[in-house]
Amino acid sequence: MSITSFHPPARILMGPGPSDVNPRILEAMSRPTIGHLDPVFIAMMDEMKTLLQYAFQTKNELTFPVSAPGSAGMEICFVNLLEPGDKVIICQNGVFGGRMKENAERCGAIPVLVEDTWGAAVDPNKLEETLKSHPDTKVVAFVHAETSTGACSDAKTLVEIARRHGCLTIVDTVTSLGGSPVKVDEWGIDAIYSGSQKCLSCTPGLSPVSFNERAIERIRARQTKVQSWFLDLSLVMGYWGGDGKRAYHHTAPINALYGLHEALVVLQEEGLENAWERHQRNHQALRAGIEAMGLQLAVKEKERLPQLNAITIPAGVDDAAVRARLLQEYGLEIGAGLGEMAGKLWRVGLMGYGSNPRNVLIFLGALETVLHDLGASIESGVAVRAARAAW
Amino acid sequence: MSITSFHPPARILMGPGPSDVNPRILEAMSRPTIGHLDPVFIAMMDEMKTLLQYAFQTKNELTFPVSAPGSAGMEICFVNLLEPGDKVIICQNGVFGGRMKENAERCGAIPVLVEDTWGAAVDPNKLEETLKSHPDTKVVAFVHAETSTGACSDAKTLVEIARRHGCLTIVDTVTSLGGSPVKVDEWGIDAIYSGSQKCLSCTPGLSPVSFNERAIERIRARQTKVQSWFLDLSLVMGYWGGDGKRAYHHTAPINALYGLHEALVVLQEEGLENAWERHQRNHQALRAGIEAMGLQLAVKEKERLPQLNAITIPAGVDDAAVRARLLQEYGLEIGAGLGEMAGKLWRVGLMGYGSNPRNVLIFLGALETVLHDLGASIESGVAVRAARAAW
Repeated sequence: MSITSFHPPARILMGPGPSDVNPRILEAMSRPTIGHLDPVFIAMMDEMKTLLQYAFQTKNELTFPVSAPGSAGMEICFVNLLEPGDKVIICQNGVFGGRMKENAERCGAIPVLVEDTWGAAVDPNKLEETLKSHPDTKVVAFVHAETSTGACSDAKTLVEIARRHGCLTIVDTVTSLGGSPVKVDEWGIDAIYSGSQKCLSCTPGLSPVSFNERAIERIRARQTKVQSWFLDLSLVMGYWGGDGKRAYHHTAPINALYGLHEALVVLQEEGLENAWERHQRNHQALRAGIEAMGLQLAVKEKERLPQLNAITIPAGVDDAAVRARLLQEYGLEIGAGLGEMAGKLWRVGLMGYGSNPRNVLIFLGALETVLHDLGASIESGVAVRAARAAW
Repeated sequence: MSITSFHPPARILMGPGPSDVNPRILEAMSRPTIGHLDPVFIAMMDEMKTLLQYAFQTKNELTFPVSAPGSAGMEICFVNLLEPGDKVIICQNGVFGGRMKENAERCGAIPVLVEDTWGAAVDPNKLEETLKSHPDTKVVAFVHAETSTGACSDAKTLVEIARRHGCLTIVDTVTSLGGSPVKVDEWGIDAIYSGSQKCLSCTPGLSPVSFNERAIERIRARQTKVQSWFLDLSLVMGYWGGDGKRAYHHTAPINALYGLHEALVVLQEEGLENAWERHQRNHQALRAGIEAMGLQLAVKEKERLPQLNAITIPAGVDDAAVRARLLQEYGLEIGAGLGEMAGKLWRVGLMGYGSNPRNVLIFLGALETVLHDLGASIESGVAVRAARAAW
């Protein structure tokens, strides 16, 4: 055996995540490890809560990062809010709605699907109709920003409908948090989860979550134990809860949390509204360049996520060859289509730190060149010119 | 709000973990993030498997790090190997055996406890007797190295008994891996988990696991779905499995994995046997110093873990005051007693990178000084002299 240290290449991450990580965050993660019960670390955790409350726009006490990726953030919401036999409506318009259904079934809950076209937003009318025909529904779950398609749903309206029917809501904001408006308290979201590696520009591995009092009441009223020990909020609350004591639950991923803390400080410095506006601005420039090349965005305009641009792959273009050349020749990673969108879409992320003019221009220039080399007839420089004109 | 970047103090971590992190690992974690489906990352994952196979002394194909702390490593073993109604014998001699029981119950399994005194090893005879009276047992689970007490059980013998009775075994090696012999194939362990932050000297947040063919057969023969989507090995195998393809499951914690890779390269460079021997050598020096001060190790000699030294707190000594002064005056963290050992023990780790003469001497000198300042009559320098004589 002769395996040596791993030295990754410097990529430009413009896929669906992980996105480009701010160097400040990488540096923060390399600071000295301290104990998870150290008073200094506990003070940092208190700051983390405040910073996450700002990112989520909430006053919820139970706001913290799960010590695992976004998939575990999804699972913590489902296993805590649902009990066997509970009916849950899941709005599915992409891969991650399907994963929600899997989670609900594994809790012994009864999922009812509201299906929408992949690439379109969730239809509020369909949710309303389904709630009317399933008045015993306890929870409504949906994905705010579908990472598999780049479609953004109207979370505010969907939550309003669910609450009107007496349901709790679970909302996936893995791709939206920090890139598009997410307003937990104003919209009345009961349980929400996100990921560290999208618009927060942190490394992957943590899942910020928040639960309001209605969600906590539901958890307190459970008849059965939560099926996961690791994700049981009644235990996690003893560690991250607001009572000042920190009961040992599991060993927190110290250095990863340094990184998330720094990411949230960066977000606070810029200001949420400025970050949202920046994502829009760079998205519009990318869009202008894409369209100038004769390509199309797959999602209709008012449902588009600025941080995740789904581009329809033109007929006759070799999907894998384009992505491979972007990676090999420019160190530029974009995303393939996922699930039923495989081969149909490229997913181009402009997330967090990576939502900047440099990435827009690099991507447009590289794509134009690769498509030209593969035989497409594109006027040289047309995409970059269009983007510059759009800023 | 005016929260700024977090700058942790430089501690000396001599508690039960996290332990001192090798600076090489912190530097590795700060390398540029790349995508989790990048061919270069996938090649790194293949190396990781080889390195972990070496650490676990196994040829098991299904050997990988769970993207979450050791608690999730425990849970992945229980939720995959157990189905509702299965009987599982759990040998409990500390906090973590109790957690195993919680996990088993939440799977709908029927736990049967074999209880031993906290601070002592698991008694093989009791396991054998219990297996005789519960011939329908499917799984035997125990903790090799109890982090809550510093006791090491005879894993080889316990596994041999379990196999003779037709049971699969789940073994917790969170604190032993890299510090004491762990031989998965030779001992016949079916499912094993560990943690990154103990004798591997990595930051917390990952849980190396390994499953042999017998365990995989059991998983394939399940009648019910695994209750956790995130921890379902049939899905995880598609990502970490040996077939060369990497089906997207969840986004791997890229930079944390850089750290673990580096930690395992460091272990390989030193050699397992050399690492075990080093842990023993520094433990003997610590022990000599402790005893020279008139203090006692709590675990009897042949059951002692070299990497986690449980010291009986002398009568009349203020536990919390001693730990607070060590932390505040020397930046030195040691562990308190956990569960029923609270107030009775100090837990002093000499783990991985932290198992070195410098840490032994700093600890002995600092403890001697603090105890003296609090009124104990200890001859100045006696502990350090004894340690030096023991090396």
